[in-house]
Amino acid sequence: MLRDLRKAIYNISTMDHSQLFASRARKRSFLCVGLDSELDKIPNYLHDTADPIFEFNKRIIDATNKYAVAYKPNVAFYECYGAKGWISLDATVRYIKKNYPDIFVIADAKRGDIGNTSKMYAKAFLENMTFDAITVAPYMGEDSVSPFLYVDGKWVVLLALTSNKGADNFQYHNEDGIKLFERVLTISQKWGSINNLMYVVGATRAEMLKDIRRIVPDHFLLVPGVGAQGGSLEEVAKYGLNSKCGLLVNSSRGIIFADSSEKFAEVAGERAAELQNEMEKYLSERKII
Amino acid sequence: MLRDLRKAIYNISTMDHSQLFASRARKRSFLCVGLDSELDKIPNYLHDTADPIFEFNKRIIDATNKYAVAYKPNVAFYECYGAKGWISLDATVRYIKKNYPDIFVIADAKRGDIGNTSKMYAKAFLENMTFDAITVAPYMGEDSVSPFLYVDGKWVVLLALTSNKGADNFQYHNEDGIKLFERVLTISQKWGSINNLMYVVGATRAEMLKDIRRIVPDHFLLVPGVGAQGGSLEEVAKYGLNSKCGLLVNSSRGIIFADSSEKFAEVAGERAAELQNEMEKYLSERKII
Repeated sequence: MLRDLRKAIYNISTMDHSQLFASRARKRSFLCVGLDSELDKIPNYLHDTADPIFEFNKRIIDATNKYAVAYKPNVAFYECYGAKGWISLDATVRYIKKNYPDIFVIADAKRGDIGNTSKMYAKAFLENMTFDAITVAPYMGEDSVSPFLYVDGKWVVLLALTSNKGADNFQYHNEDGIKLFERVLTISQKWGSINNLMYVVGATRAEMLKDIRRIVPDHFLLVPGVGAQGGSLEEVAKYGLNSKCGLLVNSSRGIIFADSSEKFAEVAGERAAELQNEMEKYLSERKII
Repeated sequence: MLRDLRKAIYNISTMDHSQLFASRARKRSFLCVGLDSELDKIPNYLHDTADPIFEFNKRIIDATNKYAVAYKPNVAFYECYGAKGWISLDATVRYIKKNYPDIFVIADAKRGDIGNTSKMYAKAFLENMTFDAITVAPYMGEDSVSPFLYVDGKWVVLLALTSNKGADNFQYHNEDGIKLFERVLTISQKWGSINNLMYVVGATRAEMLKDIRRIVPDHFLLVPGVGAQGGSLEEVAKYGLNSKCGLLVNSSRGIIFADSSEKFAEVAGERAAELQNEMEKYLSERKII
């Protein structure tokens, strides 16, 4: 009952592929702001409020929403505060959905388990908390991913090629010329569609986007690793953009912790505007908008 | 401060490989009880209590602890109730640690992310909530796993070969005769030791345990899938036991939801006793105890 009421209030509409493209075209941006809101890095003066993490996020969101098409709270940074962290996370999603309903919100949770368990994670993030999407790890295969895809109007963002050093350990495991991450892209395409499935492809390997676009020409790609992790936006745009944009580029620390004074939100807004500006240039050059 | 106090009270000791073996020998058991405590399946009369999931778990734990060497709450079944679910989860771990401190408690969470994020998950489960271990997905490689291994005295249970149908999609991806799950076992061994790393190997593929024991002869293996998922305990024992036992066999639904009346805990105790009895037989036959 409470959930239905919340759904009616906050989860007004779900977004398909063309609506996601429309929101990018409208904002001339494909920026996703990562809300890795670590308590220790939040300006001191907010620590006296009842919910410092939410107060921080609220200010970041108010300052950056004009330039961003998506937000991506990193669930670990909430979960590490237990029940209190979950309240901050829930309040953050609600705040975005209530005030900026056209913005796509991704739970960066990297979940994935046997079917009946993934179903519970889907319930947690996509139904109860009204996220639009959740990041999912592919290791356990189809029945660990599909329960998330079954939630009407919601999205899976499946890990393909990640931006960290450890990606080399297994993601390049090569069977007859097919690397594991390529197999993930090829096989998982059959589980969903371009309307409910996108992929994580790390920006630190931007040149790989060329090959990846051969396998998934039309899917949206969520690209982390620009900024703090060293990826180049120009390279990502060069190899990753398709005719419907097809990208969501994430920046977390480079925006939200760009300044640690009371002006943090203003500076975050400036950083987001700079990225949006650069994105607009690439979108125009390619005549996508 | 609060955390230190809690650690002092509840997390009295951590367990290494030989202590884990000692607890198995003492109880003549290698049973892990999975606390997949789905609210809809909990007897009606508990729904009127303040925390039905915790009340259910408490009764299950009191009835089964004589036969079990480990408990494994499945985090999804708590997370789907948001902050409230986290309170039930925390209360459950605390209850076990306070009343049965020699029992090993695993957060079945299947986490894994870039280093700074895995560190936060490690903090959530292994420090703040005092779990002894957490299940981790290997897809993102070493730097996604090692932050969990760095927590002194705690364990990673790394996914190798899972018990679900989707395991076929990627885990058998074969490079020069080495399957992906074998590569996971081989490479990850270097990240930890038999004192802080064990592996998930699904019981529905018990015959595979023979090959797996060639790669990891000494590590503990956590084996889910006995019971509801169709795995055979006899087969698992045959191929999986080593001279120090080396196994933790999990049963969830087959124990905790064996009966839905007010006698559910008594029946759960009986089911756990049956499994312990069978395990004792295998341990004796192999002269492990």
